[in-house]
Amino acid sequence: MTPDYDTPLFFHVMQYAADADRDVVDMVSGNPDWGSPDAIGEGLHEYADLGGADFQYPPSEGLAELREEIAERRNVDASQVIVTNGAGEANYLAMARALERDRGSEFVLTDPVYPYYPGKTTMLGASARYVDTDDEGHLDPDDVRAVASDETAAILVNTPNNPTGAVYDEAAMRELLAVAEENDALLLSDEVYDHFDFSGKFTSALSFDSENRVVTNSYSKTFAITGFRVGYAIFPESLVDVAKTRHMLTNVATTRPGQYAVLHALENTDPAYYEANRELLRERIETFTAALDDAGADYSTPDGSFYVMARFPDFPGTLDNVERLVDEAGVAGMPGEAFGDSRTDWLRFALVSPRVEEAAERLAAYFE
Amino acid sequence: MTPDYDTPLFFHVMQYAADADRDVVDMVSGNPDWGSPDAIGEGLHEYADLGGADFQYPPSEGLAELREEIAERRNVDASQVIVTNGAGEANYLAMARALERDRGSEFVLTDPVYPYYPGKTTMLGASARYVDTDDEGHLDPDDVRAVASDETAAILVNTPNNPTGAVYDEAAMRELLAVAEENDALLLSDEVYDHFDFSGKFTSALSFDSENRVVTNSYSKTFAITGFRVGYAIFPESLVDVAKTRHMLTNVATTRPGQYAVLHALENTDPAYYEANRELLRERIETFTAALDDAGADYSTPDGSFYVMARFPDFPGTLDNVERLVDEAGVAGMPGEAFGDSRTDWLRFALVSPRVEEAAERLAAYFE
Repeated sequence: MTPDYDTPLFFHVMQYAADADRDVVDMVSGNPDWGSPDAIGEGLHEYADLGGADFQYPPSEGLAELREEIAERRNVDASQVIVTNGAGEANYLAMARALERDRGSEFVLTDPVYPYYPGKTTMLGASARYVDTDDEGHLDPDDVRAVASDETAAILVNTPNNPTGAVYDEAAMRELLAVAEENDALLLSDEVYDHFDFSGKFTSALSFDSENRVVTNSYSKTFAITGFRVGYAIFPESLVDVAKTRHMLTNVATTRPGQYAVLHALENTDPAYYEANRELLRERIETFTAALDDAGADYSTPDGSFYVMARFPDFPGTLDNVERLVDEAGVAGMPGEAFGDSRTDWLRFALVSPRVEEAAERLAAYFE
Repeated sequence: MTPDYDTPLFFHVMQYAADADRDVVDMVSGNPDWGSPDAIGEGLHEYADLGGADFQYPPSEGLAELREEIAERRNVDASQVIVTNGAGEANYLAMARALERDRGSEFVLTDPVYPYYPGKTTMLGASARYVDTDDEGHLDPDDVRAVASDETAAILVNTPNNPTGAVYDEAAMRELLAVAEENDALLLSDEVYDHFDFSGKFTSALSFDSENRVVTNSYSKTFAITGFRVGYAIFPESLVDVAKTRHMLTNVATTRPGQYAVLHALENTDPAYYEANRELLRERIETFTAALDDAGADYSTPDGSFYVMARFPDFPGTLDNVERLVDEAGVAGMPGEAFGDSRTDWLRFALVSPRVEEAAERLAAYFE
């Protein structure tokens, strides 16, 4: 099965859970529940009072101060940064830009995969080649090398990974970039969970000097503002101008209130905010995986992001079984089949509920 | 000359004006200077205090209450409405959707044209056919009929018009829609200036019942919030689902703070706000065109939008002449050549400065 983009399925499952006759713990979608830093609301309040010229078009590529702040943090030149309508647009721009190089029209994707990637691939008229990860979600660069060719426009990775929780280490990232370079392709690295690395192994594709890598990111998860739609893409100098043109012709610019609030939050958020969220997630992972042990499930402990994939005995990861779990156990997850062929036996649970412990107990009781 | 998208040229001229050694009245871009209704700032303040789940993803197609408010005002079903990242994205979705019908790959555009339309045409891999308007910017549906064919994907109109100020009346709109239907094409009607009709003749394409029309709009001009990026597209039921998919795969969703503020403003803005802005513009048009008379210029009095195109004796609408006018007269406009072949002798002035009267006096003195 080629996975479709997953939001309709998300909506379907969330709606099914909301319509259930019983109390359900919602672990379906990746909406952080731990709250934004105060500086987000403060920034919006500040902006709301500005009015006038400050309510008008920002530069198409983003507010200059925000691009400079991003550039300084990511150690690139501000001219390489485009502020986008979330990572959703950043990935769209990056994938379109890869195709516009006219060096192939295939994307190498992982299986399991974040379902928007195959969706965008289809929308852009390209095709996908899938590489299986191992059970823990790790990608062997040699497996990527085996399918990469001069038809490859880009290799698309997400680290820390949704849905597997894998974090690709420095050696893997270096080698994936080498495979891209060997095939005159791009490495597109979607790093939206970079603030949720529990392993210390996260390595941005920006760590390597190359004209063949594009990095996308977003403040959706970092600041728990998935609804604001502020992200960014970092392109090599040789590729950025055409990407800016597409950004302008698609969206004109990214929303200015959101850009302002994000800039304010970058300048005024203590590192303790990020650390507290990681600590919260570490605790939830421990609680949840302990219950999975009790339930006799297979799983891998995530090194990053905030998802756990689990396989229960004789309980494949179909939509039917997801609905059964809602009705009979009061826990809503996502069917593994939404993420590709390799995880049809699995379910994905997002650890974004204060009731993770309760969900864990319910699962343990249901499957024991 | 095929006009390129105009924002880089906008930026160039605005920068040139800002760098000038003298005082310059900026009449380059369409950023309203009359201020947003209070309810916009109030809505943002309200939203900023919500936090938590209200900061997370809205439905991809837009907040339900906002879509219902739009649907009620435009007399359509809410299921037809997609809330977009401004009219920029709405037009992108509409043009892409027209091509996805596989009933031709040409867009019929006007000359003069809003330069983003040819830019999007190129980006989408389509081609453009141009139809000249008359000197006042009116479009003869028979001229459109003469170039429309089974290659036509859509006829793209902007009423009230940027840059001409023309407003297409009911007979013209009905006939343009008929031409679209005759050729199994769509009429795409970009109506972002619908609150700036001074003639009473504005007729939305929504006035006619048809499966062949898509209407785009935005709150950028209506509420003087070009930087917020909140607009919408209204599709026929038969076309809306595929457009929603592209919206999701491009942007995931439209920024929620902006949607919230717009909804609050729709519910809490007195009709007097819109009328006061029209009255202000009527006065500016009168002042400015009187000075154009003194300067011996040709022009047409706009029926809508907030631009005046003018042709001065022996002073073609080139970028060189625009820069000369900045340096020698202290007034910055846009070169007519940015809008197509038909207006290379003309300059466009946006009436979005409190100093329109001063600009008018400077032009009259310079050309007299």
